[in-house]
Formats: sequence, structure tokens, C-alpha cells
Amino acid sequence: VAASTAPEWAAEIIAVGSEMLTPIRYDTNSLFLTAHLNALGIEVVGKRIVGDDRERLADAITHALSAAQLVILTGGLGPTEDDVTRDAVCLALRITQHAHAGVLAAIEARFARLGRKMAPNNRRQAMVPEGAEIFENPNGTAPGLWIEKDGKVIVLLPGPPQEMRPMVEVSLLPRLRQILPPMFLATRRFRVARMPESELDALIAPVYTKYSNPATTVLAKAGDIEVQLRARASTREAAESLCDEVARPIEELLGNRIYSRNGDPLETAVGHLLRDRGETVAVAESCTGGLLGMRLTETPGSSAWFRGGYIVYHDDLKRQLIGEFHASPVSEEVAQRLAAAARERAGATWGVSITGWAGPDGEQPGLTWIGVAGADGVTAQRFQFFGERDRDRTLAAQTALDLLRLRLL
Amino acid sequence: VAASTAPEWAAEIIAVGSEMLTPIRYDTNSLFLTAHLNALGIEVVGKRIVGDDRERLADAITHALSAAQLVILTGGLGPTEDDVTRDAVCLALRITQHAHAGVLAAIEARFARLGRKMAPNNRRQAMVPEGAEIFENPNGTAPGLWIEKDGKVIVLLPGPPQEMRPMVEVSLLPRLRQILPPMFLATRRFRVARMPESELDALIAPVYTKYSNPATTVLAKAGDIEVQLRARASTREAAESLCDEVARPIEELLGNRIYSRNGDPLETAVGHLLRDRGETVAVAESCTGGLLGMRLTETPGSSAWFRGGYIVYHDDLKRQLIGEFHASPVSEEVAQRLAAAARERAGATWGVSITGWAGPDGEQPGLTWIGVAGADGVTAQRFQFFGERDRDRTLAAQTALDLLRLRLL
Repeated sequence: VAASTAPEWAAEIIAVGSEMLTPIRYDTNSLFLTAHLNALGIEVVGKRIVGDDRERLADAITHALSAAQLVILTGGLGPTEDDVTRDAVCLALRITQHAHAGVLAAIEARFARLGRKMAPNNRRQAMVPEGAEIFENPNGTAPGLWIEKDGKVIVLLPGPPQEMRPMVEVSLLPRLRQILPPMFLATRRFRVARMPESELDALIAPVYTKYSNPATTVLAKAGDIEVQLRARASTREAAESLCDEVARPIEELLGNRIYSRNGDPLETAVGHLLRDRGETVAVAESCTGGLLGMRLTETPGSSAWFRGGYIVYHDDLKRQLIGEFHASPVSEEVAQRLAAAARERAGATWGVSITGWAGPDGEQPGLTWIGVAGADGVTAQRFQFFGERDRDRTLAAQTALDLLRLRLL
Repeated sequence: VAASTAPEWAAEIIAVGSEMLTPIRYDTNSLFLTAHLNALGIEVVGKRIVGDDRERLADAITHALSAAQLVILTGGLGPTEDDVTRDAVCLALRITQHAHAGVLAAIEARFARLGRKMAPNNRRQAMVPEGAEIFENPNGTAPGLWIEKDGKVIVLLPGPPQEMRPMVEVSLLPRLRQILPPMFLATRRFRVARMPESELDALIAPVYTKYSNPATTVLAKAGDIEVQLRARASTREAAESLCDEVARPIEELLGNRIYSRNGDPLETAVGHLLRDRGETVAVAESCTGGLLGMRLTETPGSSAWFRGGYIVYHDDLKRQLIGEFHASPVSEEVAQRLAAAARERAGATWGVSITGWAGPDGEQPGLTWIGVAGADGVTAQRFQFFGERDRDRTLAAQTALDLLRLRLL
């Protein structure tokens, strides 16, 4: 399948707001924008954050326009003196702005609807640079603005994500499509548990590195990897076909290590397997302290498959559940007996147990036994994690879910 | 106390790497850098992200130098052709670079120590621009670089946080202190549970808005607020005194709603109260599915105060713990009986229960009863949360911890 992709447009994104120049806030709007721009074939070649400073912002806009056909600004459209984006754009483009009767009426109507009095400041938000098109903002007062000048496009969007995101989807993307060649995006998502990233990449890189379209991204966090494919083409069919060409061999290579093909997390995949079989699960957790139960109940509807369980942190509570034991609390025997007892006591189809030495203390930090009990018997496996408390607990819960999943397949 | 702060320097931070122009990665190095620069009295006036493109990056450096005395670049110091930061800096500053024997020897020694063969590419990392000072990198191959030109300072740091962060602390900050007036930072952190941000702010804003030094930041997430004060002065005593002037009235206003004065999370504060009294706790959780137990075991050493508990998700498991009940499973009676039974069955000083309708299904999404049982009796309180599953579960666990804390005071 040889479907050519359209030549890429270059975009710069400028997030406006002094709060994003502090140590605690960062710009997330640009990630959302980038995903949507990429889908249209627009490449983001630079991002910047500028404070609430008219001259610095005007300078940044001028500089960005020298490098990109499309410059998108988010934020700084509020009613206060601190909100300088409209002024800075007019300064950079050497254009004027005027109060816009329609925008002013919309702002006044919004305040009336909310039963609040409009402050005089809000009139600032009705200022519209000459020649600008207006994007309505059903979720706030400041409209978005689209300005074309000297073959470039400058877009102003409100900063609050709950205003910016709908405006992008409802107004910006359709407007961009009017001036861009047709472009369709097809995506695939595969999620895999418990494979080291390097091992997974060594397996599938020989497939995906042969292609730049679809673009492949491998995202890894503790015990969990997501492989994303994104193909672009001028028809939907061509884009889907490009994705399939890479997705099929990847699916073959990964086999049943893939737990999700739609982005669902592991607990949801396990829950759906249980639900489809009309089965239930109960847990007995020591070092994870409730994390496994918490994950199994993150998905709405989990009461259909999750019975509950036992947090057997202190050995006294282990004994209450399984009776006396002479082996180590972190042992095959105890893991098996905990899984079997959780299953039986809670009246579940399956019992899953986790017992380990959570770091940094304990006899052997990171050593963990995980048990799975079903009608066909009980098994337990030994894992040596890293001796890092948070990471080990995350890995233990993830591993327990995946061992149950494999038993359910 | 009138301690003047030194005039602020202006800095720009440039993060280099095409991966940070995708929809999935963002720059976090700049947050770390900003915190440390602010502490020295340096203001960050702009941040940008540039891809692995030599000309675009050189242009960004030139532009940043026009706006700031200090420009810090992170990333792009690796061994491959994609790593263009050194080249771009030389292009922007119109200086040359040369292989540096000392750096090359250090890189070779690192490979020898790791028992690996050095690839020819790594020789690129020994290139040093003329006049540059070298920051050693004990955690990687690329050294950091400090270049002074025309009264400006340009700093190049490696991108991986585990290399960048120690280099900032060990090399960059001491070097900056050499050229800056003396500056000391004093900080205070107060954490408060279960207060709406607007209510807390209405209470303390009349105090802190009178001061720009210390700067006050209020950080809110679900059911948890942190108030940070940061004062700068030319002596340590003056900085501490500035902090105290604002911290004392804030402490008085918030009283025992403050659960932590050192940044510790609520579960740790509760754990320390229990440990100091030689007491223990057990839990019975329904809608939170193990989240409360998970939080109580996040802190190392929790085995000293946490016994374990019961995940009574299905009503059958509630009955196993407390016997038959005819009230609603989400009721005062059931919450009280669950807390008392958890305490008694697990042999703990305290029992805490959570039972609620987790959204989006259930009779009354968000309705939650939380019980606390101790030697002096059992109480339960009713909460109507938002009917949003994740948020409600977080709030329920947070509230349960805070109710226990108040009983322990």
C-alpha cells in the first residue's frame, strides 16, 4: 500500500501565563493540540511558554511566525490587565482591535444566564483584532480568534482546558481542514504487561522501524507498555490499511501477551474476562495492603466480578485466614494457602494472593510470592522485584492481575 | 523585618528533543531548574522546546539570549547525529569546538568501568566549545558546559533527569552563586485535608497577600491542599524571619486542620501519631476496595501501626464480618458495625470503615458513611461526595484518614 502523505505544515504553540513559569505548573494544552494537529498532518516544530508580558509575548509571536505557517496561542484572553494576548498579537502583527458588538452581546447574555453581573473588565474580552474570525466559546466568556496575515495563520484560544478543548474540536479543526489537503488518521493501541521495554522493543522494532507511516510510539511505565501506531493517508481506507500492515505482524509477535487492543487498563481487561465467563475473584494481600483490590474496583461495574478480600498485613491476620503456618510468611506455601482461603472464604471462582517483603526493610526486600487459586487447583510463582517499595507494590499488583488473566484465557 | 531581595536575574530555559514535541512527552526538567533558580533569586522569563534541528535550535538560542542574561539548555548532548545542542550553541555564538582530552579520557574510563566498548560516536561527546568550563557527569557520558560570552551565560546540561539533577546541585548552583549576590531561601510547608480551596484561601489570603516576600503558593488536589511559603534574603536569619512573619498567623488561622508541617502526606502523619502512642489501626473498606489500606501501607515502617483489614465489597462479605444487617449497606449502622468489627477482629486499637455508593451506578452515587471505632466508642459520619468514581474514592480515603487523625489528637 503506497499512500502518500501530504506535505507537512509547521506549527508553533505558545502557552501564555506567568503561572506556567513557576516550578509547579506546566502546560498540558499543547499536548492535546499536538495530537490533533499531528492527525491533520501538521507538525509542531516548537513550543514556548511566555509570561503575562505584552512586549515579551509580541516578540515571541514575531519570532514564532518566522519559523512556522501556523502559530497557536493558548491563554491570556481573560478580563484582567494581566491578560495581554490580544494586545500582543495586535502589536506583533501591527493591526488594530475594536469592540465587537456580537461578542459583547454574547458575553452579556452569558452573565445574564448565570444570574451574575458583568464586571466592566469583561468588556476587554469583546475586543477583536481587525480581520479576525471568531470561534464561539460556549464554556466561557473569551471567544477564540483566527487571524490570517501574509500567508500565515494565528489562532488565539482560551487557556482553561475545559474551554480550549471543545473549541479545538468544534471550531479550530474544521477551520484548519478547510485550508489543508484531506487527511485521515488511523490508530492502533496494544497494551502488554510485565515485559521489559528493551525486550519488547527488540522483538517488534524490526517490524515498525521499516515504516515512518504509521508512526510507532512505545510508552513504558512500571510493568506496563503501550504500543501506539498512527497512520495518515488521504482516505480512511488507506490509513487503516497502512496501520494493519504494521499491526498484524506486531500482534503475531506479541500473541497473548497483549492484554488490551483498545487502551483499557489491565484491571478492566481482567474484569471483562471474568464478566464474560460469569466468574468472580477475591484477594488476599499482604505487602500491597489493598492495592490489588483497589485496582480491581477502579472500573465501574466491578461489583459483578469482584467479591472483596482480606488485607493480611500482620501475620496474625494471615493466621486468621489460613490457620497456623510454620513456613516464612513470604513463601510458596503461604501464598498458595492465602489464595485458596480467599477464594473459599469469599465464595469466589478465583482467589489471588500477594505476599512479599516490601522495602526498604524486611528480610529480603522485593521478594514476592503471588498465588492464584481456581477450581482446577492453586499455583504460586516467585518474583524478585527491586526492593523499592512503591515500584515493587505496583509491579506485584500488575503481575497478580496478569497471572489471573493468563489463567482466564 | 525589612530585608531587601537582590535584583532578579532573568533566565530562559530551552529543552531540546523532538520527542517533547509529540503529544505524549513533556519537559519536566524545567520545573526542577525553575525551583532552584528561583531560590537563587533568578526569575525564569521564558521556556521553550525545540526539536533536534541544528538551525532551529541556534535561532532559538540567539533569540533567548536577546531576552535573558542566563540561557540554560537541557538535552541533545548524546552521541548521535540527532544530538545537536553543542553544534547549535557554537553556531549561535559563532565559536568553535575542539575534542577535549580530559573529557575523552573520562568517557573512555566510564566505558571501561562498565565493561563496555566505547562506540566511535561517543567521541562527539568530548567536543568542547572554546572557552567553556566543564561540569563533570558522574551519572552519564556527556559533561555539562558553562559558557560566558558578551556578559551572558549559556549552560548546557544533559537531558536525562538522573544526570541533569545531580549536575545542577553539585556544579551549576555553586557556579551561579559565585556570580550572584548572596541569597538564602527559607521555606514553610503546611498541608491541610478536606478544606475547599476557596474556603482556605478566603481564610489566609488576607495574611499572605500583604507580602511578596515570602511568596505564597496554594496547591490543591482532591481533598488535599498544600500552602508553601518561600522567602529570600541576604542572610539565612533574615529569610527565616520573613517566613515566620507570615507562617505564624497562617498556623493560628488553620489550627489543627494542619496535618503536616514538613510536606509528609496524610497517611504518614497518621502513622506517626499512631506510632508515638504505640497504637494500631485496622480497616474495613467497601467502595474504596483497598485504597485506604494501600495508603496506610505506603509509608515504610507501617507494619508498626497497621494490622490489616477486610475488603467487604460484596454484601456477603460485610455479613461475614458484622453478621446480618437490615439497614442499607451504606448507612450509619453498617459503617459503625464495620469499624467496630475491623477493630475487634484484627486486634487493633482503632478500626476505620468506609461504605459508599461508588459512581456511576448505585442507589445514590457519592453517598458515603465513614466510621471510626476506638476504646472510647464508635462514631460514623455521612458525606455526600460528587458521584464521580475516582474522585469520590480518593476523597473517602482522605476523609477517613483525617477523621482518624482528629480522634488521635
